[in-house]
Amino acid sequence: MSSDRPKVVIVGGGFGGLTAAKALARVAVDVIVLDRQNHHCFQPLLYQVATAALSPAEIAWPIRHMLRQQRNATVLMAEVTGLDLAGRLVQTAAGPISYDYLVIATGATHSYFGHDEWAQFAPGLKGIEDATRIRRRILLAFEHAELAHEEAERQRLLTFVIVGGGATGVEMAGAIAEVARQTLANDFRRIDPRSSRIILLEAGPRLLPTLTEDLSRYAERALTRMGVDVRTSTRVTGCDRRGVALDHDRIDAGAVIWAAGVVASPAAIWLDAERDHAGRVRVLPDLSIPEHPEIFVIGDAAAVQDAKGQAVPGVAPAAKQMGRYVGTLIAARLAGQSLPAFRYRNLGELATIGRRAAVVKFGTLSLTGFLGWLFWSFAHIYFLIGVKNRFIVAFTWLWDYVTFQRGARLITEVPPQGRQ
Amino acid sequence: MSSDRPKVVIVGGGFGGLTAAKALARVAVDVIVLDRQNHHCFQPLLYQVATAALSPAEIAWPIRHMLRQQRNATVLMAEVTGLDLAGRLVQTAAGPISYDYLVIATGATHSYFGHDEWAQFAPGLKGIEDATRIRRRILLAFEHAELAHEEAERQRLLTFVIVGGGATGVEMAGAIAEVARQTLANDFRRIDPRSSRIILLEAGPRLLPTLTEDLSRYAERALTRMGVDVRTSTRVTGCDRRGVALDHDRIDAGAVIWAAGVVASPAAIWLDAERDHAGRVRVLPDLSIPEHPEIFVIGDAAAVQDAKGQAVPGVAPAAKQMGRYVGTLIAARLAGQSLPAFRYRNLGELATIGRRAAVVKFGTLSLTGFLGWLFWSFAHIYFLIGVKNRFIVAFTWLWDYVTFQRGARLITEVPPQGRQ
Repeated sequence: MSSDRPKVVIVGGGFGGLTAAKALARVAVDVIVLDRQNHHCFQPLLYQVATAALSPAEIAWPIRHMLRQQRNATVLMAEVTGLDLAGRLVQTAAGPISYDYLVIATGATHSYFGHDEWAQFAPGLKGIEDATRIRRRILLAFEHAELAHEEAERQRLLTFVIVGGGATGVEMAGAIAEVARQTLANDFRRIDPRSSRIILLEAGPRLLPTLTEDLSRYAERALTRMGVDVRTSTRVTGCDRRGVALDHDRIDAGAVIWAAGVVASPAAIWLDAERDHAGRVRVLPDLSIPEHPEIFVIGDAAAVQDAKGQAVPGVAPAAKQMGRYVGTLIAARLAGQSLPAFRYRNLGELATIGRRAAVVKFGTLSLTGFLGWLFWSFAHIYFLIGVKNRFIVAFTWLWDYVTFQRGARLITEVPPQGRQ
Repeated sequence: MSSDRPKVVIVGGGFGGLTAAKALARVAVDVIVLDRQNHHCFQPLLYQVATAALSPAEIAWPIRHMLRQQRNATVLMAEVTGLDLAGRLVQTAAGPISYDYLVIATGATHSYFGHDEWAQFAPGLKGIEDATRIRRRILLAFEHAELAHEEAERQRLLTFVIVGGGATGVEMAGAIAEVARQTLANDFRRIDPRSSRIILLEAGPRLLPTLTEDLSRYAERALTRMGVDVRTSTRVTGCDRRGVALDHDRIDAGAVIWAAGVVASPAAIWLDAERDHAGRVRVLPDLSIPEHPEIFVIGDAAAVQDAKGQAVPGVAPAAKQMGRYVGTLIAARLAGQSLPAFRYRNLGELATIGRRAAVVKFGTLSLTGFLGWLFWSFAHIYFLIGVKNRFIVAFTWLWDYVTFQRGARLITEVPPQGRQ
């Protein structure tokens, strides 16, 4: 259990942490991966769990299983409660753990811009439990509409508001439109799910602001064709049990989904380090923090700039590149060598809108429509972990594509109060 | 929404209720199916969700989706709170619903023999949420053992007790043994999951008491070979947070699973009807209740005797036969005809023990070993609902059989106290 080899403690088993651990597979160190969950989650497909297309286990895998063949890696399911930088200790609910190198890869969570009380009314989408919570709310809204005695209440329950027009918001809006217009079309007797209103709110002037204006316009057109009410330059000023407030208006809704902002996990506070407006730790060019060359922050928890001085986006490929860099850097340092600064390589961006529609930006290449959708599907199948999951997800997509169905429409874990 | 046709209200969307609804598809009635859940669950495979082999959505489907093509059927997700027999009303959380015929198909739940306080320590296995709760406890026991600082605590956490040696207990014990000895064998660094103790307790003198003594002995031998400690004639006298108490002994355990007894849902209390020791309603030969020819009780909620005077067992085929009978009987009555009394046809019994081992009793035919396992697998695939689920479950089983893996090893919805 203890050895004389340097100890690398990695906090977080997401894309960044896992890649860092794997980059150390052939290095003479002991790697400890800490996570409060037992599973790694393939976040790019979370919205498909939230909209009942996939099951949680199809996009999430036990971290320890993913590292089972890496004999120098130990995975511990334990919540980190703080750091002791002087003593080089990670404090956890299961006791302190010492380190020689520390990699913080704790990711980000939803940001409600100072209104944390909105979280209960407008859940965000970061983990498996967020996804099943949103799935429950969407499906329960239809169930309650079928039971409602008044028309106004029925209309409220059949209104779905998505806050935030980035990739997650666009994907959620498209998927909910498909659920309402196609999947559930024949399942009810007293309501017509096709009459649902799906409203996508974006505070800025256009959807998908990190893509080109052409692609933004395409996404808006495609969503509008699917029956989504897209409202740009529209800011949410309040959330409550029955909907959202806008500047001079309000929308009564059966479910509100938050896709508007993220904030880094409390790593910066543990580290007492300088952070940006989103709580991300400002790191040095080698991703370490000032005065602590043995501590690295990677992925969504880090504020990193690319060669052009632009912020590296909080996406899976960036986290994986940072993880690989830090793993390689630690190996180099132990061998008495050094590495040039971290450099982000932008592999492209993509978002799917619905059946046969997606937008893809890949260097100078832009794809939309069916071709974009095919590219998106293959890219995600390729990056899924596990051959079996690739088969099952590919089969499920093909099946759902042909039948318009979604197989994972379970309402589970209804809280005792029963109505959310 | 309202018509002049007779209204048949069915409470419960399990095997019995669903089959009754389907039997009325071509009859000029309005069918209303009430369930507090939105899904029908294929209970015979629940233990595979509890032991991380299958995902919930692979064995559960929205009730309304299963009845979507039956235009005379309306599905409402609402909890029944009571009955008004004089007014012919079902009371629900969403208001009263009137009926001309009422079919009670509310099933059974776990019985702790008067010790309901044991439920929190020893969950039973009746629904999807029970299954994910048990899965969480089993997987958390291994996680906590990896974190434990003391050997005694490690040994406690790696001890799994299954209470009850019927089909569910036998299947759970075999599956947990496989999880510990094969699935997780290489996933931990500080513990060896193969050293786990799996203890199956049965109060009576033999396992699977409804099968022949030969098959009971086979099951006990097969489980023992898999490393399960089978203890017959052993009664549990207490359950607490750290294990179970026996008559003159106790077993400290990391997880306890209850498979010992069932009790009917509170239908008999709503009906104020005569009931047997397990809370089941004593019905007349046509499954109606005395003085109320318009009210039927079917499935696990009913106490029915077969032609030889033996109690009809609480299994899926029996519930389906009763549902079909009652649907046909209502149709006959509306046509001014009558039907002979309900007759249970025993199609056989079966239980699986593990890879390549199962016991099957099918009339005079008994099967054990690999042949029994093949028969069991095909029978369950055949009865699964939905072509897609058949494909995916068959593929998952084949995959797991070849790789010794189990794909659904997620720990989700950990309660706030965090340790259960």
